[in-house]
Amino acid sequence: MSHHLLSVDSLSRDDVDHLMRVAARMEPIAQRRQVSRVLEGAVLGNLFFEASTRTRVSFNAAFCRLGGSVCDTTGFTFSSMAKGESLYDTSRVMSGYCDAIVMRHPELGSVAEFAAATHVPVINGGDGPGEHPSQALLDFYTIDKEFSRLGKGLAGAHVLMTGDLKYGRTVHSLIKLLSLYAPMRITLVAPPGLEMPGHLVDLVASRGHRIEQRDSLAQDYADVDVVYTTRIQKERFTAEMSEGFSLSRDFTVDRAFLDARCGRDTLVMHPLPRDSRPEANDLDVDLNGDPRLAIFRQTDNGIPVRMAIFATLLEVDDLIEQELRPVRWFVPPRVGVDDPAL
Amino acid sequence: MSHHLLSVDSLSRDDVDHLMRVAARMEPIAQRRQVSRVLEGAVLGNLFFEASTRTRVSFNAAFCRLGGSVCDTTGFTFSSMAKGESLYDTSRVMSGYCDAIVMRHPELGSVAEFAAATHVPVINGGDGPGEHPSQALLDFYTIDKEFSRLGKGLAGAHVLMTGDLKYGRTVHSLIKLLSLYAPMRITLVAPPGLEMPGHLVDLVASRGHRIEQRDSLAQDYADVDVVYTTRIQKERFTAEMSEGFSLSRDFTVDRAFLDARCGRDTLVMHPLPRDSRPEANDLDVDLNGDPRLAIFRQTDNGIPVRMAIFATLLEVDDLIEQELRPVRWFVPPRVGVDDPAL
Amino acid sequence: MSHHLLSVDSLSRDDVDHLMRVAARMEPIAQRRQVSRVLEGAVLGNLFFEASTRTRVSFNAAFCRLGGSVCDTTGFTFSSMAKGESLYDTSRVMSGYCDAIVMRHPELGSVAEFAAATHVPVINGGDGPGEHPSQALLDFYTIDKEFSRLGKGLAGAHVLMTGDLKYGRTVHSLIKLLSLYAPMRITLVAPPGLEMPGHLVDLVASRGHRIEQRDSLAQDYADVDVVYTTRIQKERFTAEMSEGFSLSRDFTVDRAFLDARCGRDTLVMHPLPRDSRPEANDLDVDLNGDPRLAIFRQTDNGIPVRMAIFATLLEVDDLIEQELRPVRWFVPPRVGVDDPAL
Repeated sequence: MSHHLLSVDSLSRDDVDHLMRVAARMEPIAQRRQVSRVLEGAVLGNLFFEASTRTRVSFNAAFCRLGGSVCDTTGFTFSSMAKGESLYDTSRVMSGYCDAIVMRHPELGSVAEFAAATHVPVINGGDGPGEHPSQALLDFYTIDKEFSRLGKGLAGAHVLMTGDLKYGRTVHSLIKLLSLYAPMRITLVAPPGLEMPGHLVDLVASRGHRIEQRDSLAQDYADVDVVYTTRIQKERFTAEMSEGFSLSRDFTVDRAFLDARCGRDTLVMHPLPRDSRPEANDLDVDLNGDPRLAIFRQTDNGIPVRMAIFATLLEVDDLIEQELRPVRWFVPPRVGVDDPAL
Repeated sequence: MSHHLLSVDSLSRDDVDHLMRVAARMEPIAQRRQVSRVLEGAVLGNLFFEASTRTRVSFNAAFCRLGGSVCDTTGFTFSSMAKGESLYDTSRVMSGYCDAIVMRHPELGSVAEFAAATHVPVINGGDGPGEHPSQALLDFYTIDKEFSRLGKGLAGAHVLMTGDLKYGRTVHSLIKLLSLYAPMRITLVAPPGLEMPGHLVDLVASRGHRIEQRDSLAQDYADVDVVYTTRIQKERFTAEMSEGFSLSRDFTVDRAFLDARCGRDTLVMHPLPRDSRPEANDLDVDLNGDPRLAIFRQTDNGIPVRMAIFATLLEVDDLIEQELRPVRWFVPPRVGVDDPAL
Repeated sequence: MSHHLLSVDSLSRDDVDHLMRVAARMEPIAQRRQVSRVLEGAVLGNLFFEASTRTRVSFNAAFCRLGGSVCDTTGFTFSSMAKGESLYDTSRVMSGYCDAIVMRHPELGSVAEFAAATHVPVINGGDGPGEHPSQALLDFYTIDKEFSRLGKGLAGAHVLMTGDLKYGRTVHSLIKLLSLYAPMRITLVAPPGLEMPGHLVDLVASRGHRIEQRDSLAQDYADVDVVYTTRIQKERFTAEMSEGFSLSRDFTVDRAFLDARCGRDTLVMHPLPRDSRPEANDLDVDLNGDPRLAIFRQTDNGIPVRMAIFATLLEVDDLIEQELRPVRWFVPPRVGVDDPAL
């Protein structure tokens, strides 16, 4: 595995397998049964040049759970870069302060440019329309873990992706990871104009998967194992596209769709944040509390997966079990029935 | 005690007694004679959707003093909530990352809504015009501790509250806490239009306290033990109200008032921040260095009280003494004569 | 040594010697061969009322490397001071929360005013046009360390300072530190109107150094050991000044200048951030990768120097060696040939 994590493209199947195994070993810590201090003394530079509370806190908490310390930077105006400092300089300077760097930046390729200037492990926390590999890894981990719980395997699984498949970077990265594994069936449902880019469809097909594209959710999806939904932003609809649709509501996943079209164990996933305002036509809140809704298990899984990324890049993954001690504070049960796994 | 701390209303006298006892046991750590690591491995989500350096740093430092790590979030624009994420979703997501959450939010009831979606302990750090229970607890702790130093008890104490008693949430919460204890005398001094809400006056009276309302500080307060002052904001004065007053200066507590009207041991308290610009007519700076001015002992007390809240909610309060080791760095004496207690 | 670090003026030669010795002892930790936890339990208040990612993260990381925890505050709007709180009040409040305070503030003298209200050690992280003593100390440490590597001593060294010598606070502080040591030769090269203030020139001369002022880089500097360059901001040029210059490009240090005018071992330093936009005429990027470019060794040195400042002010400098244990995570080699020292 490369010493940076910039894109899922650089991950072999062995790399993904390794990260998944390490993440599973992180569960006792992530679920707060055990405490680890293996990274005590290490410092993470958590550089968010674009707002993202969820991703930032997730990386921060994951590093802390391994015993490390975190220096957060949020926003552009608080940065030397506002004074004309190059990514090269910022990277070289931060490398002298930190043992690992997570960076989110609005510009495509910026994180790779930053990483090229340093040997300190750099993790892409999202570079605009580019990559967000830790999200794809936690999505993949979630599918794998949920399938285990349900007694299923990845071979022959049927994954439906819907919504904005053109601009949604998370579905691009996830489909690449899935394509590394045993033959699956992948169904893509998007309105015309927002379809999955052709080169990704070709890639998946070339690896022996059965891939199908549709333009409507109003069909039978009874054998679908996972519905991965992303929000369609109204502004992406052009005049022509809108004619055949009551705007993007046609691509909204809700309880009615799940009950009418899908199976009893169909999982619903979403990269979050979910826009809960009704006019957003995002994943419906009427599924809250339904065990099929896996979105909060997804974000939970961000902790063990990001811990696995840090532990692997910093080469402490073999030391984890030597360090554990029991948690002594109160850890409450989860709220609600939407968490059958814990 | 509830597993959240959202309002002083949910606190019984036993709860308050317990927190005060635990806070007293935290003093050796808060005063930096001892180090505790009892929460090592735990992560606090310190979510400030409204600016408050003082309160945020106080919670942060208190959690660190117990050995935990803190993920800070400040401001609204850096939040998924700007993208339409509901408090429900934010709460569920953060619960997967953190072991306890402090939240400040400008909207009344928002913190309770957030807390309803999680079993992870949530502490209200202020929800607009609503509650700020840790402030009331540190105010109460301060009165109790100062009275001990002065050889007084709470029974029969005389507490004067002045300033904006209508909108000041800290005086509302403090009066509720005081009312749980041995009969006291409480005098409320506010300009017409900014009086303490009637239901609070009635509550205090119904619990057997002697409560009195006045509209001027220009009287004798020689037997008052505590003057709790809050700033009156000019914009709260209407045309009619202002006629009889030289604006809010009539309600400013300063050295002249204390010397002329009060006793030798009368304590002056304030929730801070204090607006030190002369035109603000806030608590006067001419009391700086006077031992009667207890405002910095108040903020100091925020550390042991917030440690007590964390330790109680996370159920490590019985473990504190097992973990202590001596501080080895230089701890300077306090500045000035305004700190007779240390 | 004073219990604050507000200005290089308060440092005797013994103080500087001591800090340099402690910084050298911090190298194994700063270079991540060893882990120290000597400040475990201590809390740093890192108050940046003006943006500075680099300085803020450097102080933060240095405190973490000693085992402490950090509470960051960035920006003015997130501060009680926006509500009229005085520096006196902020200082007294923060002293109750923190064991040491780093403060950057846009106003001259503000940090000293803040420090006067507390006995908790306060470090000036830059007060507008005033002081930034930790920068001067890391610059001095860099010169000393690089000279050792090159087999040179400070006695008789030739230091050239160029660029904006009038407004650049870093060169003011550095020249004061240098002047405490064995006689040197100091050459100042600035355009008319941006020369080093006369009182500093006089101070250096009065301490027995040979000081010379020029107005052009187009001369022979073959025996110069260090070129310390600072950016000239265009807006500082007046109409008259500009006549004789092709704007500030005449004072840009680049590879051509170094090859044509200087020696093989001449070091190039800069306080950073460097403005890499061509129109800025700052230190040229064509020196990137050249071992003479010491700017990233400078920022690296910020960690051991700031650790030394904290350890000295908090009086744990004698405990450092008792606490070390080996780093167990992966520490990569540095990038590029511009780091001959590691």
